[in-house]
Amino acid sequence: MTTLPTLSTGIRNARNVVHYLFGAGAIADLSAILDGHCHNTSRTAIFFIDHFFRNHNLSEGFNAVTSGHQIIYVDTTGEPTTSFMNFMRDRVVADSAELPCAIVGIGGGITMDVAKAVSNLLSNGGDAEDYQGWDLVRLPGIFKVAVPTLSGTGAESTRTCVMTNTASGLKLGMNSDFTVFDQIILDPDLTRTVPRDQYFFTGMDAFIHCMESLNGSYRNAIGDAYSSQTMQLCRDVFLGDDMMSDENRAKLMVASYLGGCAIATSYVGVLHPFSAALSVVLGLHHGVANCITMRAMEEFYPEGYSEFYRMAERQGVSIPEGVCRNLTDDQYERLYAATIIHEKPLTNALGEHFKDILTRWKVRELFLRM
Amino acid sequence: MTTLPTLSTGIRNARNVVHYLFGAGAIADLSAILDGHCHNTSRTAIFFIDHFFRNHNLSEGFNAVTSGHQIIYVDTTGEPTTSFMNFMRDRVVADSAELPCAIVGIGGGITMDVAKAVSNLLSNGGDAEDYQGWDLVRLPGIFKVAVPTLSGTGAESTRTCVMTNTASGLKLGMNSDFTVFDQIILDPDLTRTVPRDQYFFTGMDAFIHCMESLNGSYRNAIGDAYSSQTMQLCRDVFLGDDMMSDENRAKLMVASYLGGCAIATSYVGVLHPFSAALSVVLGLHHGVANCITMRAMEEFYPEGYSEFYRMAERQGVSIPEGVCRNLTDDQYERLYAATIIHEKPLTNALGEHFKDILTRWKVRELFLRM
Repeated sequence: MTTLPTLSTGIRNARNVVHYLFGAGAIADLSAILDGHCHNTSRTAIFFIDHFFRNHNLSEGFNAVTSGHQIIYVDTTGEPTTSFMNFMRDRVVADSAELPCAIVGIGGGITMDVAKAVSNLLSNGGDAEDYQGWDLVRLPGIFKVAVPTLSGTGAESTRTCVMTNTASGLKLGMNSDFTVFDQIILDPDLTRTVPRDQYFFTGMDAFIHCMESLNGSYRNAIGDAYSSQTMQLCRDVFLGDDMMSDENRAKLMVASYLGGCAIATSYVGVLHPFSAALSVVLGLHHGVANCITMRAMEEFYPEGYSEFYRMAERQGVSIPEGVCRNLTDDQYERLYAATIIHEKPLTNALGEHFKDILTRWKVRELFLRM
Repeated sequence: MTTLPTLSTGIRNARNVVHYLFGAGAIADLSAILDGHCHNTSRTAIFFIDHFFRNHNLSEGFNAVTSGHQIIYVDTTGEPTTSFMNFMRDRVVADSAELPCAIVGIGGGITMDVAKAVSNLLSNGGDAEDYQGWDLVRLPGIFKVAVPTLSGTGAESTRTCVMTNTASGLKLGMNSDFTVFDQIILDPDLTRTVPRDQYFFTGMDAFIHCMESLNGSYRNAIGDAYSSQTMQLCRDVFLGDDMMSDENRAKLMVASYLGGCAIATSYVGVLHPFSAALSVVLGLHHGVANCITMRAMEEFYPEGYSEFYRMAERQGVSIPEGVCRNLTDDQYERLYAATIIHEKPLTNALGEHFKDILTRWKVRELFLRM
């Protein structure tokens, strides 16, 4: 077991996904990959699968892959909370006294985040809320695999899994090297069945966090390179004729992965804190919450703002409107608090005196524009 | 120990470097990283360092980092052979009966390749020639760290270490997941002292292999994304005012890393086989051999060819000329054989009937143009 070194320069030691398979049909290799970790043991793998696939075929021959293993469908209706993560862990523990040989997450950001969190909890003990923060996980998780069926969040390549604390309402992930997947399978065939709106909203997550990074003060050449390439791929996809062509689904899957890599050495900016507040207070999903927040972002990101609307128009996607009108004073106060708590990204975007810019009144006015 | 799975789709399961640190001054964190692997053991780390640094200061305070460990300077005058790799391994074994806790390679492609090869040989036994090929290494090597002091080869991120077989003359690496570094430290301050010509020749390695990949028939969206971004960074660097400014040295270091990542899911093309022949038969270094080969590549890569010469002109770098004039028939024959043996890249570029295009006569004519 490697000791986590404390570094003196303050430069982040970025952690990559160990293996990635990329290509149409790549999911067919999942069996062989699990064999490498599960054979010669009597142990089973746990498949966390988005509940959408309870009634939809994931890929031909997929039933054979899960045979002898345990499937747990993940209800992705709401954003995950710490209680939800603990509940998912309990589902695994209830069915077997033995640790699984592998955890596989098949779905979008939420399902992948469940796989990450449960993998860490099974090895480390305790509850999800114990690990919200930075580098609190002490032991490597169970061998974990992601198979994204939705592109944009970058959950397949980041070192966090996002969850809202059930007690405090704080949205904060388990940021740890041990949260990173050991293996990911990027198979663009799996995003064929995504509804067009959801494909756009989630895809824009990659565009948006890279736009924020490139406009921040905390910059470096490797984060910039990942961000630039991600944004270029998003332009190819969303300014093209059909954002869901085979070629574009492949490109968006790459954009999502590289966008996640960009996050490893950079920070987001103004948009993500507002979007997080929409999720925490109004329960909106992250992807659509980002797009809604964009309505109020012209003054901070004028170029990204106009590019965003060109893309939405090109693809005929309409963004929900007016979601923050007619809220109670208490709700506006909670939105303010849930925004302003994200000090790192807000400092990255606006400097350390960001509260002088984002006053209570200003924040409320921005939410009203959404 | 994980069993290497045999995959059914034929898609490569790409292996990333596990950790990377990027930033000016990042080498200061090497000590802390080694502490994580070497503390609580009496074992030492082995530092393979380019012999250039025998008389040049690598960084302030670097002596303290190597204190208690063993330094072996690597003579990088010639391209490495299998005997050279074995000799380097013997140097380590002669000094200690115990395996080192870590192997650190500090230098350019050759020095990093020595670190990779020796790390694998120490764990696996046998000699370097036993592992020339694909996936012949059976066990993980000693924990290995790269600190590049020259940008372009991508050795810091690839799964091979290049060497020429002393007996057969075949230039072929140890292609293995176990060849990939566990940790790399990308510190652009370390390339300040590189001579301008060498900086250009080696930097162009990244540009050239990505140009070849993007013009091949074996393509995929992730390899393309890495290659496009690498070429864009090279354009920024070499079409800019000063290719060695702080900003450009940082960018070229990123280009080298991402160029190496591109190689993981793609192939090179026509240029690298000719360049490899120049190295094997005439002993030319890989970087300069690539640039010399470019002289004969206009018909295969017209755009890359003209971009290359714009960059060389912009930076005032002259490319050696006439290196294949007045050779013996035997030398031309060996050049032909050493080119044509690289079937995968030549098929990628020209199709499976590449020998109909690259006849003996044509190959000789191309070498004469260099």
